[in-house]
Amino acid sequence: MTTQPKLTAACPVPKNDYDKILLSHGGGGTMMHKLINDVFLQSFGTGDLNTQHDSTVVDISGARLALTTDSFVIKPLFFPGGDIGSLAVHGTINDLAMSGARPLYLTASFILEEGFPIQELKRITDSMQKAADACHVQIVTGDTKVVEKGKGDSVFVNTTGVGILEHAQNICPKRIRPNDKILINGDIGRHGMAVMAQREGLEFDTEIKSDSAPLADLVINLLNEGLEPHCLRDLTRGGLASALNEMAAAAGVMISLKEADIPVTEDVKAACEMLGFDPLYVANEGRLVVVVPDHQADKALCVMRSHAQGKGAMIIGQVKEADSPMVLMQNQIGATRVVDMLSGEQLPRIC
Amino acid sequence: MTTQPKLTAACPVPKNDYDKILLSHGGGGTMMHKLINDVFLQSFGTGDLNTQHDSTVVDISGARLALTTDSFVIKPLFFPGGDIGSLAVHGTINDLAMSGARPLYLTASFILEEGFPIQELKRITDSMQKAADACHVQIVTGDTKVVEKGKGDSVFVNTTGVGILEHAQNICPKRIRPNDKILINGDIGRHGMAVMAQREGLEFDTEIKSDSAPLADLVINLLNEGLEPHCLRDLTRGGLASALNEMAAAAGVMISLKEADIPVTEDVKAACEMLGFDPLYVANEGRLVVVVPDHQADKALCVMRSHAQGKGAMIIGQVKEADSPMVLMQNQIGATRVVDMLSGEQLPRIC
Repeated sequence: MTTQPKLTAACPVPKNDYDKILLSHGGGGTMMHKLINDVFLQSFGTGDLNTQHDSTVVDISGARLALTTDSFVIKPLFFPGGDIGSLAVHGTINDLAMSGARPLYLTASFILEEGFPIQELKRITDSMQKAADACHVQIVTGDTKVVEKGKGDSVFVNTTGVGILEHAQNICPKRIRPNDKILINGDIGRHGMAVMAQREGLEFDTEIKSDSAPLADLVINLLNEGLEPHCLRDLTRGGLASALNEMAAAAGVMISLKEADIPVTEDVKAACEMLGFDPLYVANEGRLVVVVPDHQADKALCVMRSHAQGKGAMIIGQVKEADSPMVLMQNQIGATRVVDMLSGEQLPRIC
Repeated sequence: MTTQPKLTAACPVPKNDYDKILLSHGGGGTMMHKLINDVFLQSFGTGDLNTQHDSTVVDISGARLALTTDSFVIKPLFFPGGDIGSLAVHGTINDLAMSGARPLYLTASFILEEGFPIQELKRITDSMQKAADACHVQIVTGDTKVVEKGKGDSVFVNTTGVGILEHAQNICPKRIRPNDKILINGDIGRHGMAVMAQREGLEFDTEIKSDSAPLADLVINLLNEGLEPHCLRDLTRGGLASALNEMAAAAGVMISLKEADIPVTEDVKAACEMLGFDPLYVANEGRLVVVVPDHQADKALCVMRSHAQGKGAMIIGQVKEADSPMVLMQNQIGATRVVDMLSGEQLPRIC
C-alpha cells in the first residue's frame, strides 16, 4: 500500500484522444467522471439524476423509493467467491442500501452472445435467485437479447433495483460534516484480486475469494439502532480511494486516513505487490464506508461488528475542514501522502 | 401478406443444437419462449415474474407500480424515424403502458465498446432526453460500462422503467374473454422494414420510417374515457402474429382476424414482398393491440382515432371460444389460414 498507484498496460490513457471511448472511461476514475459530466449530465440534466450517489431517491404516492441500475460485464463469469449472477444481485442491492433503502424488487436483463452455453446461463440465473432469496428480494421481470458471435462477450447482465426508505434520513455525500468519523466494514481488495487471479490463471498459497456480499441488512441494522449515517458508500470500481475522493469532493472536505487502520489481508497485500496494484484502488463488492457523527462512531462500530458482514469493521479516518477537498493518508511511520483519484482503471471489467 | 412466414438465412434454426444460444433465442418466437421456460422461469420461479405480459405490477406502500426492463441492441444505431436512444425510451414507456401505468421514471445503463465515438454517444443521450421530455418522464439514474474492442458492438442501452397505476383495473392476457374485440392503433411493419432497409442499404421510392412512438398517453386516454381494456400488448419482436398467439395461449381462446382490416402501407407491403418477409411478423415500436369487451369496441376505436398515435386505428378481429388456442385469419377471398408463431426470428437485432 506504500507504492504509488500504477496503471497497467491493459488500459493506457492516451493524452489527446478523448473523442472515442477508452477502457479507462469505465474505470470509476476521473475519466469516467468527465464522461458523465460531458455526456450524460449534459443530456439528462441535473434534476433527479444524482451522479454523486449510488442510488436515487424519488417520491411516489408518498413513499420514498430508491432506484438504481447497473450493468455487469465482469470477466471471467465465474470466480472464487461468486459469479456474474450473484454479483449482479449484490451490486444492485448494495447501491440501494447506500441510500438506506430496504431492497424490494429487481429486474434482470440479459444480452447473450450467440453460442453461449445454455447450461452456463442456467448456472448464472440459479446463482441470481439464490442471492436474491438470501436478501428477501424478488426478481420480478426480465428481458433477453441475443447478439451475433463476436458482437458481445458471453453474457452481460443488467439488474435494476427498487427499494423503499423506511426512515426519514437523507443519506448522501453532501451531508458529510467536519469531525464525522469514517468506518469500513472489513478488509479491502479481495474482489479485484480474486477476479484478477482467476483471469490471469495465477495461483497463490491460499485462494483469494471475492468479498461479494449483500450489505442492505447491515445498513438496516445501523438505522434500526438509531444511528444517523451522513453518508454510505460501497467501494466498487476505483476502490476505497475513489469512493473517499468522490465523497470529499461532494462535501467540500478533507478526509484523513490512517493506513494502519485499513484492513488488508496478507494474501491480498502480497498479490497486489506482485502485480503492481494498490489495494486502495482495487474494487470490492461487499465493502462500504459509513460516515457517522463523531459521537456515534463507537456505537456504529459495535453494531457493524455484531453483523456477519461487518466482523472486520474498523474506524479508518476522520473528516476535517479544508479549503480544497482531498484525501490524505498517514502511513505507519507517520508520513502523510495525498491519496489521489486515478484517471483510468487498474482492472478493467471487474464488475 | 399472403406468403407463408419465412426464416431468413441470417438465423437458421438447427434441429439438435439447443445447448447453445442461437440468434433465434432472441427473436420473440417459440425458441425464446422455450428459453424463458427452461432457464429463467426454472430459476426465478413464477411468483411475480410475469412472462406473459410486458410489465409487472407490484404493490409498494399501497401504490400499484409497474416495473419493466429492456436492453436494446439494435443495429444500425440510427435509422429513419429514430435511433437506439429514442427507441430505448419509447420501448420501455410502452411496456409500462401495457399495464395501464403512467410512466414516471427511467434508469439508463450503457455498455460501450472501446473506440465508440463520444459524439455518437452524445447524439444518443440527447435523443433519449428529447423522447423522455416528450413523455414527461425523468431519467433519474444511470450506469456506464466499457468493454474491449470486439467484445461488444458500439453501444447497448438498457432502460428500466417505473410507472404508477392510477386505476383499479387489472390489464393482462388472462382477462381476455370470448367476444372481445381486437383493435390496432395503425399500420404494421414499418419499424422492422425501416431498420432492415437501413441495414442493407436498400432504397425504395419513398423512405420507410420507423413507427417508434410512445403509447402511454393513448392508453391513459382510453382509461380516462372509462374504457376497460382486458388486455394491451405492444407489437415488438415477432410482430402482430406473435403477440396475438401469446395472448390466445395465455387466455385459452381463438383469435379471428380479417386480413383486409389489418393496415399495411403499400411501401411496406412491397418491401416485404421483395425481401420475403410477412408484415404480420415484422417488429413495430409504436403499435399496440387493445382488447376490449364487444360493446366498448366502437367507443375505443373513436378514442384511439382522436389521438395522434391512433389515427389509423382499426378493429381487426374478435376473440372466440376454442378447444385449443390459435389465431386464424380470413383473407380477401374468404379463405382462412392459421397464423402460427415463428420459432425463430425474421430480423435479428431489431430492438
